[in-house]
Parts: sequence; C-alpha cells; structure tokens
Amino acid sequence: MIVILKHGVQQEKMEGLVNWLKNQGLGVHISEGSFQTVLGLIGDTSAVDMDLIGSLGIVDSVKRVSDPFKCCNRKFHPADTVVQVGDVKIGSGNFCMIAGPCSVESEEQIVEIALAVKKAGAQMLRGGAFKPRTSPYEFQGLKATGLDLLRVARKVSGLPIVTEIMAAKDLPRFEDVDVRQVGPRTTQNFDLPRGRGRLRKPILLKRGLANTLKELLMSAEYIMAGGNEQVILCERGIRTFDDYTRNTLDLAAVPMLRELTHLPIIVDPSHATGLARLVRPMALAGAACGADGLIIEVHNDPMHALCDGAQSLRPEEYASLAEDVRRIREVVAG
Amino acid sequence: MIVILKHGVQQEKMEGLVNWLKNQGLGVHISEGSFQTVLGLIGDTSAVDMDLIGSLGIVDSVKRVSDPFKCCNRKFHPADTVVQVGDVKIGSGNFCMIAGPCSVESEEQIVEIALAVKKAGAQMLRGGAFKPRTSPYEFQGLKATGLDLLRVARKVSGLPIVTEIMAAKDLPRFEDVDVRQVGPRTTQNFDLPRGRGRLRKPILLKRGLANTLKELLMSAEYIMAGGNEQVILCERGIRTFDDYTRNTLDLAAVPMLRELTHLPIIVDPSHATGLARLVRPMALAGAACGADGLIIEVHNDPMHALCDGAQSLRPEEYASLAEDVRRIREVVAG
Amino acid sequence: MIVILKHGVQQEKMEGLVNWLKNQGLGVHISEGSFQTVLGLIGDTSAVDMDLIGSLGIVDSVKRVSDPFKCCNRKFHPADTVVQVGDVKIGSGNFCMIAGPCSVESEEQIVEIALAVKKAGAQMLRGGAFKPRTSPYEFQGLKATGLDLLRVARKVSGLPIVTEIMAAKDLPRFEDVDVRQVGPRTTQNFDLPRGRGRLRKPILLKRGLANTLKELLMSAEYIMAGGNEQVILCERGIRTFDDYTRNTLDLAAVPMLRELTHLPIIVDPSHATGLARLVRPMALAGAACGADGLIIEVHNDPMHALCDGAQSLRPEEYASLAEDVRRIREVVAG
Amino acid sequence: MIVILKHGVQQEKMEGLVNWLKNQGLGVHISEGSFQTVLGLIGDTSAVDMDLIGSLGIVDSVKRVSDPFKCCNRKFHPADTVVQVGDVKIGSGNFCMIAGPCSVESEEQIVEIALAVKKAGAQMLRGGAFKPRTSPYEFQGLKATGLDLLRVARKVSGLPIVTEIMAAKDLPRFEDVDVRQVGPRTTQNFDLPRGRGRLRKPILLKRGLANTLKELLMSAEYIMAGGNEQVILCERGIRTFDDYTRNTLDLAAVPMLRELTHLPIIVDPSHATGLARLVRPMALAGAACGADGLIIEVHNDPMHALCDGAQSLRPEEYASLAEDVRRIREVVAG
Repeated sequence: MIVILKHGVQQEKMEGLVNWLKNQGLGVHISEGSFQTVLGLIGDTSAVDMDLIGSLGIVDSVKRVSDPFKCCNRKFHPADTVVQVGDVKIGSGNFCMIAGPCSVESEEQIVEIALAVKKAGAQMLRGGAFKPRTSPYEFQGLKATGLDLLRVARKVSGLPIVTEIMAAKDLPRFEDVDVRQVGPRTTQNFDLPRGRGRLRKPILLKRGLANTLKELLMSAEYIMAGGNEQVILCERGIRTFDDYTRNTLDLAAVPMLRELTHLPIIVDPSHATGLARLVRPMALAGAACGADGLIIEVHNDPMHALCDGAQSLRPEEYASLAEDVRRIREVVAG
Repeated sequence: MIVILKHGVQQEKMEGLVNWLKNQGLGVHISEGSFQTVLGLIGDTSAVDMDLIGSLGIVDSVKRVSDPFKCCNRKFHPADTVVQVGDVKIGSGNFCMIAGPCSVESEEQIVEIALAVKKAGAQMLRGGAFKPRTSPYEFQGLKATGLDLLRVARKVSGLPIVTEIMAAKDLPRFEDVDVRQVGPRTTQNFDLPRGRGRLRKPILLKRGLANTLKELLMSAEYIMAGGNEQVILCERGIRTFDDYTRNTLDLAAVPMLRELTHLPIIVDPSHATGLARLVRPMALAGAACGADGLIIEVHNDPMHALCDGAQSLRPEEYASLAEDVRRIREVVAG
Repeated sequence: MIVILKHGVQQEKMEGLVNWLKNQGLGVHISEGSFQTVLGLIGDTSAVDMDLIGSLGIVDSVKRVSDPFKCCNRKFHPADTVVQVGDVKIGSGNFCMIAGPCSVESEEQIVEIALAVKKAGAQMLRGGAFKPRTSPYEFQGLKATGLDLLRVARKVSGLPIVTEIMAAKDLPRFEDVDVRQVGPRTTQNFDLPRGRGRLRKPILLKRGLANTLKELLMSAEYIMAGGNEQVILCERGIRTFDDYTRNTLDLAAVPMLRELTHLPIIVDPSHATGLARLVRPMALAGAACGADGLIIEVHNDPMHALCDGAQSLRPEEYASLAEDVRRIREVVAG
Repeated sequence: MIVILKHGVQQEKMEGLVNWLKNQGLGVHISEGSFQTVLGLIGDTSAVDMDLIGSLGIVDSVKRVSDPFKCCNRKFHPADTVVQVGDVKIGSGNFCMIAGPCSVESEEQIVEIALAVKKAGAQMLRGGAFKPRTSPYEFQGLKATGLDLLRVARKVSGLPIVTEIMAAKDLPRFEDVDVRQVGPRTTQNFDLPRGRGRLRKPILLKRGLANTLKELLMSAEYIMAGGNEQVILCERGIRTFDDYTRNTLDLAAVPMLRELTHLPIIVDPSHATGLARLVRPMALAGAACGADGLIIEVHNDPMHALCDGAQSLRPEEYASLAEDVRRIREVVAG
C-alpha cells in the first residue's frame, strides 16, 4: 500500500501517522520527493482500512499495490478453476449453457421447458422459486413448492438445477440444490461454516447493479474464505444513466475478470437487457468475448409466444441460438 | 398504467394482449392515434409486471400513472409522519441530531462520545456493532458485545441508540434497540410478522448506492406493509462516475422525497462524503434543503485527533456544527 | 405526446394548460381516469418543449409517443442506409474494418501502418491530426501537417482516410478528407449549409460519454436535417462508476440502435477499453452482436512493441484479429 | 507520477520502460518490493500520457502525485481569486446573485425581468440568446437579436449581462458581453490568443454532465493558460442513474473545489433540477455549503405563472429566496 501525503505536511503530523502505522505491525518506507512525500507500507495490509487513511487531513491519496483478494486471485492461483456439477464442467475451456424460465410456475411448465432446453443442448436448468422483488405487492415466487417442482424437472430431464437463495434461514431447504445463485451482498449475511461438506456445493455469484469488479471479487472472497471454492461469477448488467435497456451489460468485465481471477465467468443476457430481441445478439457477443457459459431465460407460455415475449426466448429460438453459440465458440477457442 | 404500442402493430396481436390483460381483471381503454395506439389499464395495476409488458415485441413503452407505493405515499396520507423514539420526535418540523462513532470500540470510547455528543445537543447515539464490510478480512464489528456497550452508553447518557442490523437471525438480539438501521435490500429478507408489537420499533432505512427514489420507497413499503409504520428515510450518497468523494450526496432527494412521501427524511453527510472536512458544509446544506435530521460520525480517537480525522468530527467540531445547524433551521423553518 | 396530470389538479389550471397547448396548434384529447387525468397531444409535437411541460406544477410526467427524430428513424425509412466511401460500403450487410494509429506522428509511421493494415484487410485508414485533449499541456496533434501526412498515406495505400474535425473553422482544410469524425456536441456547432455538395461527405459520429441513444440520434438528426445523410454511428463506451476500463463499452447499443435507425453502426473497442489486451475480445463481441464495422488502433512503435502496448494492437495482432472477425461474421450473417 | 509494475515483470521489459521514460527527460526512482516494483518519476510529468503508460502490458497502474493543473491550483496560488465585473465582485467572501430568464424572448420580457431581479437583489442578469439544444427542431434562441435585447436590458437596469457563447466564430459579437458562459468542451475549441485584452473578460465555466472535478479544472486551465485568469466555476448537476430530477446536483463539489482551486464557485439549482419547486431548497443548500454565488432562472411569463412554472421562479418567489439566502450566508460566513 502506498500513501501519498499532501504537499507541505508538517513533520510531526507525518511522524504521528508513521508511528501509528508501525504500531499496526507494518514496515514503512518513506520517499521524500520535491513536491510530495510517499509512504510505502510493507507487510500484510489486507486489514488496513484504506478509506480511513485516505480521509486523513494530511493524506492526498492511498493506493493498494497488492490486491485485497487472495483466494480468487489469479496471481496466487494461475490455473483456471473448473467447477463441476454432476457431469457438467464449467471453466478452463468447458463452456456451459444454463436455461429455463424466469419463475417456476407449474410442474407442467417447468418439466416441458426442462426437456426442451435439454434437447437444444442446455446442460443445466434454471428457474426462480424464491424471487427478490422491488415491490411487496408483486409475485414473490412459489418458494418451497417451486423448489419441489425444480426437483421433479431435474428427475425427469436429468439436468442439474440452479436457483436463487435469498436468506440464510433457507439454507436447509437448499441442501440438494445443485447450484445456489446468490447476489453479492447476500454472501456477507450467510453463515459460512468451514469444513462442512454440504456447503461445498457450487455458488453462482451474480454481480450487483452497482458492483465494481473488485467488489464482486471480494464477495467471492467471502465465500472462498468460508471454505467453498466452487464459485461461478456472473456478469448481468450494471446500472448507468442509459435508459434503453434495463441495465448496461458490461461485457468487457469478462476478459478483465479472466485476467484478475481463475474462477469461471458466465453472462446473463436476459436479465441484463430485459428484452428478448436483444438476448440473441448479446449471447453471441458474450461467447465471442470469452465467457465460460451463458444463463438464458426460455419460456413456453402462450402469452409470451403471442407477443414475441418479454426477456425470454421460445424453445426453438433458444435451440437456434445454442447452435450459433457453438459456432462462435469454435472461432474463439480456435 | 398506460401501454404505448408500436407503430403498425397487427390487429390480432393487439387483441391478444388486450384479452390477456382483461383476463387479469383489468379494464382496458384503447385510444388509437394516427401514429400509435395507447392502452389505458383501469383497476388495481400494482401487481402488474411492468417489465414484462414493456418487453413484449408489440409494445413501445409502459408508464405507470399511479405510483406502486401506497403506505408511504403522500397522496394517500397527506400529513407528515412523526416518528417517536422515547421523548425524541422526528418529522413534521421536529429536527433530530444523531451522532456517534463509526464502530463501537470499547466502553470507555462509546460512553465518552455519548456524553460529548449529548452535551453538544445530539438526541440519539449511533454506533456500529455488526458492520457490513466489503472484505472478509476487515474488522466486522464487536457484534453482540458492541450491542451491550451501546446499552451501557444509553444508560449513562440517556440517549436512545441507533445501530445496524444485517440479518433476520439477529432480530432477537435487537429487541431493545431503539432504532434499527437497515439497508434497502435487507428489508426484503426480513420476516415481517404483522401485529407483533416488538417489531413496531422505528427503522432507519438507508438509501442504497444504486437506489432510485422509487426503489427506496418500495423498500419502505415492504416494512410498512408488514405492519410497521415507523420508518425514517436516510439519504447517504449514490454511486456515480464522480471520484473525489466516496459517494455523491444527492441532496435534491430531500425535497423530492418530501413531495412523494409523508415519512421523515434525514441526511448522512459522513458516509456520503467519507471526508471529515466535507461533513460540516454538507450537514449545513442538508439542514438548508429541509431535512428532518442529520446522522453524523463523531470520534474521540487520538489517531483521528492527530490528523484531523477520517470522516469523523471531533466532539468540539460537532458542537460548533450543531449550533450552526440550529441557526440554519431558524432560517428555513421561517 | 402524453401529459399525465397530478392527482387532484384544479379544473381551471388544467384548462389553462389545455388552452396554452391549443394555442400552439396542437389538438388535445382529455381522458379523465379515477386517479389521474391524461392529455393526449395530437399534431406535430417535435418542437414542443417536453422538459418545460414536465416541470409544471400540475404535471406528473410527460411521455413522447412519437420519437423526436425523423430523418434517422427506421420507422420512416425501413431500409438500411449504405454509406459509400470510394469503393468501400458500410451498412446493410457491408462490414467495414477501419484501422490506424491513435495519432499521426510521421510520414514513415503513417505510411508503414497504412500498408500493414491494408494487407491485413482494413478498408479505411484512421489517424488523429487534430486531437481533443483534457489538458492544454498535452500533445494536441500535428494538426494541418498531420492531415497532409494522411493524404500521403492515402495515396500510397489507396485507403480512404478517417480523421477527427473539432471546429467549424477547420472545415476548408477537411474538404478532401473521406470521412470526417465528429463528437456529438460538435455537430450542433457546425454550420451545416444545405445543398453544398462538398459537405455531403460521410460523417463518423461518435457517441458522447454521457449520451443516451436518443441524444446520439438527435445529433445525427442535426447533420441529416442539414442535408447530409451519410452518417455512420459509433459506439465507443460510456462513463459509468466502473473503473477497470477507461469507459464501459455498451454493446447492447448496437442491436438497439439497429432497431431505432437505418444508419450503419460501428464499434470502437480501442478507445472504449483503453487496454490493448481487451481490444481483441471486445472486437469479436462487437462483430458477434451485429455491428457494421470496427475501428481499431494499430501501431508500429517500438515503445509499444516493447511492452505489448497501450490500447493499440501490433499489425500482426490486427491481422489475426481481422481473420477471426471474418469468421464470426460468417456465423452471424449466417 | 508513480508507476506500479505488475508482479513478476521481466527485468528487460522493465529496463525498456525505464529507458523510454529517461529519454523523455524524466528521472526514474526504482523501489523493488517483495510483490511489486514501483517507479517514481521525477521532473515535469504534466505532458506524460498517463493513459498510455497505464495501458502497457507490464504496468499495473499509474498515479499522479502532482496535479496536472497549475494555473487554477490552490497549491500554487493559495489566495482566493476575486473576479470583478464592473462593480460586482465574486469570490473570497463576495457572494453574487445572478438571475434572469432561460431564453431572451422580447425586449419587454427581458427588461421587465431585469428590473424585477435587480429590485430583489440580483447583481447580474442572465439570459440565453444562443441556445444549445438536443434537437435541431427546437427553438435555438434569438441569437444576435437576443444579444441586442440583453444590451438594452443592461442599459435600463445597470446589471452586467451573462450569456452563453457556443462557437469561436461568434466571439466578435460577444466583445461587450460582461460574462461569457461556456461549457467545458467548448473551451478546447476556442482560439485563445494570449495577450489580447478583449478576451480577458470573465468566463463562467459550467461543469459538463459527465465531468469529473479534475476535468472541469483542466478546462479552466485551458482558459487560464490562454491568458485569461477571470474564471468562475459553476456546478450544475451531473448525469447519474437517478431519474427524478433532470440531473443530480453534486453540492459536495463546492467545498471540494474550494480545496483544489482558488477560483470562485457558483451553483445553478435551476438547470440541475429542472423543477421550480426544488430551486428554493437547493439554492439555500448551495449557499449553506459555501458557494460564492447562485445563478437562478426567473420568468414573468403568464404560462409559467399559471402553472407554477417549469424550472423558473416568479420574481416574488425569487425576492423571498434572495432574502433567505442572505440570512443563510450570515450563518455560514459567521
């Protein structure tokens, strides 16, 4: 960590800061320039409160030289992580297609979609049972019943299931869920007991609307520091001033995360854009920039079918897309 | 709700949509213009999925005419809500000063600060016990011990206490906390049993970094629909491209929220800016634009004292600020 | 245009607004709902000041039903525009590769790069002569000399040239420039004389850092309303809170603009990311989501070569990328 | 400037970079840490291209230690600048009220408003003659005629006039305009001849929607490096995800700019919010956080009067606001 002091700082104030840093067990290397003095902190700075130091009156700015994330950092684990879900692998050249409806609605619906997306080449089934909603008056999902219907669809189709968990108290219900999806803040609220096998099931960690890549990686770090290294990262759009799509899909995050971490990275073009007609081009773009997989909404609902539908594709549109994704992958993996 | 169809939509697709809407119990008023057709939906549209309709292939855009929030909506409750905490009132002309350290660190610290801010005119004591942190390696707060120390400080100073709760499982520990502070997503994860008196304690609801005002109000709606109408809203900065302060304090949110809701609105200049030297001007600005209170960090730590300190004010700086806030209030309250 | 009035508006205030609107030559259709009254404005509303009406005390919100852009609107010109530059075509299935250095530095440099990118398959040469810089102390480009060197490179390579014009006073110097690049604000400051052939040369219009798609299209509208229909749009990243890349490349803008306008749309992955190692994946993604072309920085500078270089690719990296772009195009154009 | 190299950089690549930097006349101080190597650049780094170095393959990040702005930097000019316009002073405790209509519409209008705002205590008259508009179909202002009407209003009222100039070609027409208002990008397109007295007239420099504070200061630097030190900065809202007000007024920019520069700083609550009913609270907040002045829209238009009007205040509202601003100033100036 580098601390850049303001121009003309008083000697005694600087010494006060240096002593305080040394008392925290850090070495301090002082370089005095003609305009500014720079302190280089030596030792384990991961617990140092950068914001606190940065806000001191004598400090101009602070810069981390080493990243605050360790478990998920490619510097320390150069080889790609491969997450395995049953026979399905994600990462390090293993591309994974995840598909299914926004919400689980009925046994007929989820089973029909599961079989359709399997036929089109999907390797996992997604579907919302517990739904985070902005409004308390909106449909909150079928909850436990939705989980049961996902289990039925898994049995019929053989596809592993991916679904969102919102609160720690629901953990027991999710024991046999193949991949638990979580938002980045949720990771901090979970009890993450080390060493218990049942929690070693893979986590699909979605980037928050206002998350920097570093913050997303720190959320992964919470899970990994708790003993679970099976983390899949998911880019799903950030909040910007832009108003034509629901969020702004930040695809450059894919190659950037590839550089920063060894974890697999997938893209969710359905939630990012909120528009079915943008799912195909953005899914192809996600594959082209090197993602390890795609999570896409597929429906079989006559209402959707009638009007070209929402952010979800029809099964036949998904099948055609999946074929083109394979061809793009051949160029990229080439 | 108004649904604007695309130019040149096929008659049968439009009829399909109209029938689907009618099947959901809504009246539909169709106005055909020369360029576009507009559907006016009549009835209770609060559960209608605006994103779903907006994403249909034949729909240009959707606009809510009535707000989706009810309990917190000034249209339905024109009179200001006054939240009462012991003898302290917030809202409808009752201005409230809340102060205290970022984290509770020791009995000596929290008691000393409590007495100092009380002397300066603060009416409530804040202090973090359970701390949400970006990094799993950073200090997570003294947790239950921190709560106990807050109780000691409350007893000594007589000030009600305000502190953050992060997870539903901690609710029993917070039963006697005077004001529970929560983030907007957290409100969705809580069990909000109707009719249980102990949950009727006031909530300080902080705006999320990426929350629109409507989203903040929908979070308040979650709490109020659960039976607790004692909600205080808090503007604490949003995430923008701007990089000089930690977040961008959005003070126009104060008069805008005043128009939209009857709930009290306070401002947190300490967390918004992250810089002690900006707390005073932004606190005065918050009072000037009509906030119902200010929550401000105050410390007594020699490290902070040494270097003018972080985002926290020294007790004597706080006392001087509190005096000027009172004078600004006289101008504003007329 | 639809004007949604606030709940409980006084009859006489509403009538005042309706009369004022009628005096502007508009028809007004009034629908009174149980909660709100909605005015539908009939006639040419393109000159109506939406912000003014929206800010009136009795108005809840205003919504355009018809788009304010006409010349560039696909609704009125369904067929794709093809921009032609010498023998090179852009749009409607004609994909165009533009490449060259950030700045023109010397005859040797620009000629060498021109020949290299031509060999790799580029159809146009880019290079900065007049450079917009944040700082007055930074290199502002070779200006008129830079233009002359571009002309030399054009003669030697046969490639048409693309370069930025910043001020109206420089127009005479740019008469024989094949494609003039402009920023969106600049288009408002130009004199756009109608009917003069020399101004009918193609314009490459770059999206501003804070431009919505509608604003970008309104800038195109300025040029087209001035008589020049040869406009190429360019997505080059927007400003967000994200801090790993210079800007956030908003690739969903490509299919979205495709829907809104008939103009060709290209992508600039070099300026958007600012990092050479992200240019390849983002260029492939741009091709995959349906762009009509790519503008990419290529250098031959030993400093860049030494260190893998800046946001520019080496000629051999560009050649390899160009080949893969062709293969992606085959999948997409299917 | 500090250059932080990536972990495990090859010795010869590092030496290549060091030699290249030395060839540019810079001293290089190398500190090798256990994880990373840091280069400290010594000498005049203001012309060094930080983005170029930051994007090199072997570089982790780059940080300026000294600011790239000099003329407007408080470090080098600790005393506040006072800009003088006739008898009116702005800065260093001199508070200035600027008011007038959005657009100049007629002699009657501008004269009536000029006299009304003068009576209410305004010291300068604003009014748009050349208007930047998003749409080519919207009213572009009365242009030269508008300037003439402003001159009439100046003569009648005695108030100096402030109005926007958009293009360098209009400079001759603006010779006798007391304060020329410009956007930040415009400053780069002007010819800024050194040493010509007529250009030494004060400039009101508005922050761009997507400008960081550093970028705003670099725009001021362009003007000052051209020989004109009479610059007034203006905060007028930034573009964020927030959608209730037109822009997000970033009031913390006021005390932050105060620290960074000696130039006066004013606030424009009218354009920032776009809503007349927010102008009063945000103007008071601007005064409370230490601005040197306020620029506010005032109208006398019956349409506005009818409906409480747009982003403009009525003269009597402005008079009441001006009185409260004076009282807030007494508290702040203490």
